[in-house]
Amino acid sequence: MMKKIVFNFTMLITLVMSAGAFASTNNIERIEPGSWWVGMKSDRLQLMVHGDNIAAYTVDVTYPGVRIDSVATVKNRNYVFINLIIQPDAVAGSVDLLFKNGGKLITYPYPLLARVKNSANRKGFSNSDVILNLVPDRFANGDPRNDNVVGFTDRLNRSSNEAGRHGGDIQGIIDHLDYIAAMGYTAIWPTPLIENNQKNYSYHGYAATDTYKIDARFGTNEDFKRMVALAKQKGIGVIQDIVLNHIGSEHWWMKDMPMQDWLSFDGKFVATKHAHSTVSDPYASKEDQKNFTAGWFTENMPDMNQQNPFVATYQIQNSIWWVEYAGLSGIRVDTYGYSDTAFLSEWSHRLTDEYPNLNIVGEEWSLNPAIVSYWQKGKIHANGYVSYLPSLMDFPLNNALRNALVEDESMESGLSNLYKELANDSQYPNPSNLVLFEGNHDVSRLYSVLNDDVDLVKMALAYVLTAPRIPQLYYGTEILMKSKKERDDGAARQDFPGGWAGDKVNAFNGVGLTDEQKNLQNYLKKLLNWRKTQSAIHSGKLLHYTPDQGTYTYFRFDQHKIIMVVLNKNKISTELATKRFSEILGTHTNAVDVLSGKNITIEKSVTVPARSALILEVE
Amino acid sequence: MMKKIVFNFTMLITLVMSAGAFASTNNIERIEPGSWWVGMKSDRLQLMVHGDNIAAYTVDVTYPGVRIDSVATVKNRNYVFINLIIQPDAVAGSVDLLFKNGGKLITYPYPLLARVKNSANRKGFSNSDVILNLVPDRFANGDPRNDNVVGFTDRLNRSSNEAGRHGGDIQGIIDHLDYIAAMGYTAIWPTPLIENNQKNYSYHGYAATDTYKIDARFGTNEDFKRMVALAKQKGIGVIQDIVLNHIGSEHWWMKDMPMQDWLSFDGKFVATKHAHSTVSDPYASKEDQKNFTAGWFTENMPDMNQQNPFVATYQIQNSIWWVEYAGLSGIRVDTYGYSDTAFLSEWSHRLTDEYPNLNIVGEEWSLNPAIVSYWQKGKIHANGYVSYLPSLMDFPLNNALRNALVEDESMESGLSNLYKELANDSQYPNPSNLVLFEGNHDVSRLYSVLNDDVDLVKMALAYVLTAPRIPQLYYGTEILMKSKKERDDGAARQDFPGGWAGDKVNAFNGVGLTDEQKNLQNYLKKLLNWRKTQSAIHSGKLLHYTPDQGTYTYFRFDQHKIIMVVLNKNKISTELATKRFSEILGTHTNAVDVLSGKNITIEKSVTVPARSALILEVE
Repeated sequence: MMKKIVFNFTMLITLVMSAGAFASTNNIERIEPGSWWVGMKSDRLQLMVHGDNIAAYTVDVTYPGVRIDSVATVKNRNYVFINLIIQPDAVAGSVDLLFKNGGKLITYPYPLLARVKNSANRKGFSNSDVILNLVPDRFANGDPRNDNVVGFTDRLNRSSNEAGRHGGDIQGIIDHLDYIAAMGYTAIWPTPLIENNQKNYSYHGYAATDTYKIDARFGTNEDFKRMVALAKQKGIGVIQDIVLNHIGSEHWWMKDMPMQDWLSFDGKFVATKHAHSTVSDPYASKEDQKNFTAGWFTENMPDMNQQNPFVATYQIQNSIWWVEYAGLSGIRVDTYGYSDTAFLSEWSHRLTDEYPNLNIVGEEWSLNPAIVSYWQKGKIHANGYVSYLPSLMDFPLNNALRNALVEDESMESGLSNLYKELANDSQYPNPSNLVLFEGNHDVSRLYSVLNDDVDLVKMALAYVLTAPRIPQLYYGTEILMKSKKERDDGAARQDFPGGWAGDKVNAFNGVGLTDEQKNLQNYLKKLLNWRKTQSAIHSGKLLHYTPDQGTYTYFRFDQHKIIMVVLNKNKISTELATKRFSEILGTHTNAVDVLSGKNITIEKSVTVPARSALILEVE
Repeated sequence: MMKKIVFNFTMLITLVMSAGAFASTNNIERIEPGSWWVGMKSDRLQLMVHGDNIAAYTVDVTYPGVRIDSVATVKNRNYVFINLIIQPDAVAGSVDLLFKNGGKLITYPYPLLARVKNSANRKGFSNSDVILNLVPDRFANGDPRNDNVVGFTDRLNRSSNEAGRHGGDIQGIIDHLDYIAAMGYTAIWPTPLIENNQKNYSYHGYAATDTYKIDARFGTNEDFKRMVALAKQKGIGVIQDIVLNHIGSEHWWMKDMPMQDWLSFDGKFVATKHAHSTVSDPYASKEDQKNFTAGWFTENMPDMNQQNPFVATYQIQNSIWWVEYAGLSGIRVDTYGYSDTAFLSEWSHRLTDEYPNLNIVGEEWSLNPAIVSYWQKGKIHANGYVSYLPSLMDFPLNNALRNALVEDESMESGLSNLYKELANDSQYPNPSNLVLFEGNHDVSRLYSVLNDDVDLVKMALAYVLTAPRIPQLYYGTEILMKSKKERDDGAARQDFPGGWAGDKVNAFNGVGLTDEQKNLQNYLKKLLNWRKTQSAIHSGKLLHYTPDQGTYTYFRFDQHKIIMVVLNKNKISTELATKRFSEILGTHTNAVDVLSGKNITIEKSVTVPARSALILEVE
């Protein structure tokens, strides 16, 4: 159900006026971004001003170091775009924007803030981190008072996993930061917390109705900022999930569209065919390329037309605003390649120009490394395209891992999936900065895909945490939460037990968990905390061996340490002669089994227990 | 069954002498290459001399412009390697090599020949060609007198498709050059004709026992040269199938190994694990890389150790010798990536240095374009590797084509295989120089893979012949020859009907063919001959559209012509609005259907008959 908005200026204004949306006495409904900072690398700031006939006003500013470069008006007289220049010597303060129309004067105090120290040089998430992806609505309900909020039509409905809001919120995350920290995660990626005041199916957060505002059912902007600060105190960085490609059909723009081409296809629904390959395809038609990037995801998710430079600037500033406002450690960009290709170059350039050490991971959901690697910074393209995106979600390796564990072993299947997929790293300019996930909110849960086999889950986790990647896990994996085998979002986004008052099972304190769940939780906790101090895992090299006899052996190593990992899919323990590994083991003859803590000799061979991952610190 | 030869000089000599192998009065059993040419780009020539205690002799030469740079002796005194320098001003003639041992003098007249005019600048097969791959033993028996030859133990056995020799030969090819030319092929790639005097299973030719000699059961070196010359007269180039990776276990070297490390693993059988990815894998162990390139294919196919520079030089000269001797239009290199990686750089460099316009196609049997493209000339590698190989067999696109036609249609399957695979062309420095095959001697036959569906065969052929590639077909495809669905070499290499005296069915003259076979033969003949004059197919650009409604539409175009191709998998005829293609069609409104010759209008739409390929010349 989408309300179709066909642009018609008179009709819209009539509609809007009659709805009383412009009740403000001073005509100015919004100015976005709602604040900015002095001392940014770029001295430019474009303010979108929205207000009844605001284009009839002239704009002026008198503030040391701040001046108006130009003011753009458009056909819709309810918008003006003010291009400010904020000189390096400007100091923080309230900048009066003076709007004049004949004798009428509106003074708008615009907040120009001071930056947090070292904001520009903040270090983003890295290989020493492990990221937890969680769905806030389904993680923990810390504040039942915001379960339903006046003015938000999609109300609490815990009976539906598929579409219902369950009441989880920012306070719920805050309440359980200690759990997250104790488990050993050092970063969280919540799915979007941005306002999604859609009529229904709003809990997921990917249909923004206001990209500058946290959804009231999750909390406030201040709550989000507080969560980031509290998390930071506990050693946890926060990665914001940003959607550039589309908004929700109930976004406030839809009631008064800034320009005719603000949305793709002038606001008419044209479905994307999801032809990811068109971006890099040397033979693709313009028609298909346009369909991929300008086509809409669904009727309820209008596609942003980033070829419109005002849209592009709005989105770039919005992303920067959140980094600066909330103190983010990184960004995850939803549906990355679906945005306009030239815009993505600019967006990634501007973001990394402001924050050279921020990490940003794009979602390019393709199993083809050529398509995923297309976007990584440093990739050379025959067509001259330049991307500045540091990281991508590693869908090809995730797929290889899942296949590796469930398929029977052969030269072409099973563990060799993993071995062979890594060879494609030659296609990436910086493969170790990719994010390897065992699961996320969009795919079936690991446990279910691995046929409810805990041993395989352990092997998968051991792999993700020792691979030459930034690991990312999905909430609930640690307690064997299930889904369907095929993608089913509702099934894969069930409530985390313990997150709701009255839950009989509480994974945060272990009450009601089965022994199997506790065992896995402890397994993961041990690995995560061990990993924190392992430089060979964070930044060491990789050497791996062709899978052999149902096992796959690889080494992570640096000048300090050699870590040997063996995945053994056999139903019996398997003895491997270590002579094969002499290239890396040299004269080393002893090792410590990380999980058991036992000392073992590896002089001649190593025995790997059945269906397990053996992790050894070689001595 | 392999005769294991462990190097032991005394034992070997005793063995060899007692076998009477050195009956020659002058001690010189062989000098290889057996001839060379003046005016080659490289002035170097290394002669391998084999003869009883030949290392006891000094070597001298007195010939204007020819001098000995050095003579290398090795532990095996039955070999010497003479490094000659042939100066640019040397003229053709018989060069006396003077071998002296005390008072004993052997004069060996070495033929130094004049090159054929423009030999160095010969143009290899190209996009304007269509290559026919045939298995000579199974194509036509032109000379029954050589079906069995004294000294060759693997005798005629037509009852076995799997392993038996069927008697096909060079004369059989010569006899049917007119058929090949009339069909419209302009190049042939026979599987190896080199001597394979193996005890059994020798018909395929990939286990050489003498790489300078045509197998006597196929004919003589002169027959081969005559075949090339006759083919050339009929507009058909000949591509020789060269195996660098291995030889046959009955190769003459095996009885008197030149050096301990002439073969990989010093002549001991170690099976390759076929881990193609190890070449480009940044994390591969040296152990695995060595196993891939030095591991043996089978016990009966000893692996050449090309890290031995004498082996490398021998093979490089052998390849050049055949190009020059026989007048080849190209080379197909078997199991390309299995050879030593550094050697392949040198081999491809030397070959293309001597013949800058010769085309050479390597077999890299991987479905991963990253692995196939690794070898193509112009590819930039982080590891600094440089390859000079112009072309590769396009296994990924062959696989995509076969899947495209048999899979049900969806966004992820069916024709989109083809669409998406071509996007990987961005990985190749020169994708249009790849050879796209519908089938070859190593894979199941097209007709069988396509479920005995003639309509799909026609679509596959139409695709191969209009794709931006060099097309290659397999003998018998034109008459719907069958195999098993899974690989079975015997089943896929049956005798071509009409090639043997007494055959009741004769595909060369049509006698006994079914109407369906004749129909397909004519279809292919028409397409092949049409293609000869289509510059837009040979060198035009490609523009293609995402598959839609069970159809896939693409255009080949240059300044002269636009060719539109639609593959329609639907069981009903399908009407496509041409508006979608306005980017390429512009104001064109008419076209000629290549197969029917009919004029049609394409102003608004085009109707594509059910389950067919429509090929239009747009006017």
